[in-house]
Amino acid sequence: MKIIDIYARIKKDLNYLEKELLKSVHSDHPELRETSSHLLKAGGKRLRPVFVLLAGQFGDYDLDKLKYIAIPMELIHMASLVHDDVIDDADTRRGQLTVKSKWDNRIAMYTGDYIFAKAIGVATQLSNPTIHQIMSKAIVELCIGEMEQIRYFFHTGQTLRNYLLRIKRKTALLIAISCQLGAIASGVPETISNRLYLYGYNVGMAFQIRDDLLDITGTEKELGKPPGSDVKQGNITLPILCALREDKLRAPLLEELNRIRAAEGQTDVSRFLDIVRGSEGVRQAEELASRYIDRAIQALGPLPEIQAKKDLIRVAHFVGNRSY
Amino acid sequence: MKIIDIYARIKKDLNYLEKELLKSVHSDHPELRETSSHLLKAGGKRLRPVFVLLAGQFGDYDLDKLKYIAIPMELIHMASLVHDDVIDDADTRRGQLTVKSKWDNRIAMYTGDYIFAKAIGVATQLSNPTIHQIMSKAIVELCIGEMEQIRYFFHTGQTLRNYLLRIKRKTALLIAISCQLGAIASGVPETISNRLYLYGYNVGMAFQIRDDLLDITGTEKELGKPPGSDVKQGNITLPILCALREDKLRAPLLEELNRIRAAEGQTDVSRFLDIVRGSEGVRQAEELASRYIDRAIQALGPLPEIQAKKDLIRVAHFVGNRSY
Repeated sequence: MKIIDIYARIKKDLNYLEKELLKSVHSDHPELRETSSHLLKAGGKRLRPVFVLLAGQFGDYDLDKLKYIAIPMELIHMASLVHDDVIDDADTRRGQLTVKSKWDNRIAMYTGDYIFAKAIGVATQLSNPTIHQIMSKAIVELCIGEMEQIRYFFHTGQTLRNYLLRIKRKTALLIAISCQLGAIASGVPETISNRLYLYGYNVGMAFQIRDDLLDITGTEKELGKPPGSDVKQGNITLPILCALREDKLRAPLLEELNRIRAAEGQTDVSRFLDIVRGSEGVRQAEELASRYIDRAIQALGPLPEIQAKKDLIRVAHFVGNRSY
Repeated sequence: MKIIDIYARIKKDLNYLEKELLKSVHSDHPELRETSSHLLKAGGKRLRPVFVLLAGQFGDYDLDKLKYIAIPMELIHMASLVHDDVIDDADTRRGQLTVKSKWDNRIAMYTGDYIFAKAIGVATQLSNPTIHQIMSKAIVELCIGEMEQIRYFFHTGQTLRNYLLRIKRKTALLIAISCQLGAIASGVPETISNRLYLYGYNVGMAFQIRDDLLDITGTEKELGKPPGSDVKQGNITLPILCALREDKLRAPLLEELNRIRAAEGQTDVSRFLDIVRGSEGVRQAEELASRYIDRAIQALGPLPEIQAKKDLIRVAHFVGNRSY
């Protein structure tokens, strides 16, 4: 049984959401319609909507309610990607030109603002204030996470805790609340929605660690962008942090980091990547990702044995092993 | 009776809001606390909170409810200013360094995102979905307005309608809904909140036209930034649009605009400003602003004769005549 089977099972609902997603950013403004559609059509795994739909199956599953969670979750994610690309000065994402590259930074900024505002607008269709409060708090944390990322650029003295807190804010929280809110919107008891939150948090942590690993170990073809993008912008990720702890590698890595920083990322980073690939850092990061996946699955333990539970376990395994 | 007297009458509540405003952006993140506080402390007329409080007096005035409107309104306004300054490449605002200038563009972007998210978070304390829907729609329009501004940079063929729709989205709507939502949160009948919306819309239009005029006719000392900032970035405002219609001025103005555009705004614009100042454009823009003020006051006509009504009329006159 593969991830594709889970998508197949909820395909009809996902297709519906895909259309609603596109409708949600429809605008009379020609440029915003173009930038937003460009962004949506560039694809993505739609992981957050998948989590919303699966979590919703633990209660009274109602797509007409769940869409007001799933669409904002995906839109908030996309808005943050557009703003990310401005910061990272990224030209491609998923093999497609970014908004900031196809248009410019100013347009990317307002496209992000616009999609973000649309996300809030869709969520207001639900009248449960708890949902809005959870969502807005997560967005605040997301912004703090982005700021933290800038703050720790090229900061080789950062701790593992700094890194983990940052990816929690940047990635894990949004996945956690996708699960939690999907459940809340379906009227499940709090004990269940809290467990789904915990599941999502752990899967989200593993997801980001995997993402950071792929930027070290992946190829341009697999990633849709050149590997080493993280270090070029100064983002010290888990495998790098671990590698920096190895006595023999610390000095050459610091030297490389200084060189990359001095070149403002406009330099070849293959030597740097080779050192990290040959370090224990890759294995250690993989181990930590696996541990998060284990915890995610544990969190589901007491939940009723419905199909969605099996699916969530499979998604967790997929995230834990993904190579793209 | 002056504007200062209106502020005096609601001073206690405004002081309370000022403290709450600062609390609302409090963050454990050192940089975000610094950038947000810098922004708030740089001041501003707090016009949107004033409108919320005055509109609230038409119903059951409850500051504990109104603050959940007034604070988001001011925060949304401030978030848009931070992002504006990135686009405009502005170094100063109200005589203070901008976030993008004191820190950098990336930090300004996330500071804006953060303040925006905080605004939504504060608003979620109210459980009336109508309020959230009106607010989120206005934010969407605000973003479209910002995009429109970019789209029409140096666009000398734009119509008066293009300009008016843009300033409606960019400025008037937020002021309109400050009045409307202050009224709704106080439980007034829809006929009254709609009239207050209409008042706010017209005052907002006049406010932005005045703002655009001041950028032509004001001095650096009055403005807290050099005059001509609008045209330097390509923003063709009402006095300029009107001046472009004068046969004798059109050719020299177009020539100046081409020169300013070619220099990417890094040039002296005093000749350009002199031409516009000497045109009919200034008077025509002043006339239109006055007409909006008249309409704003008319909108209040059927409302009960309470002190807040007199205050709103005075605020309208103040906006119509403001020279700073």
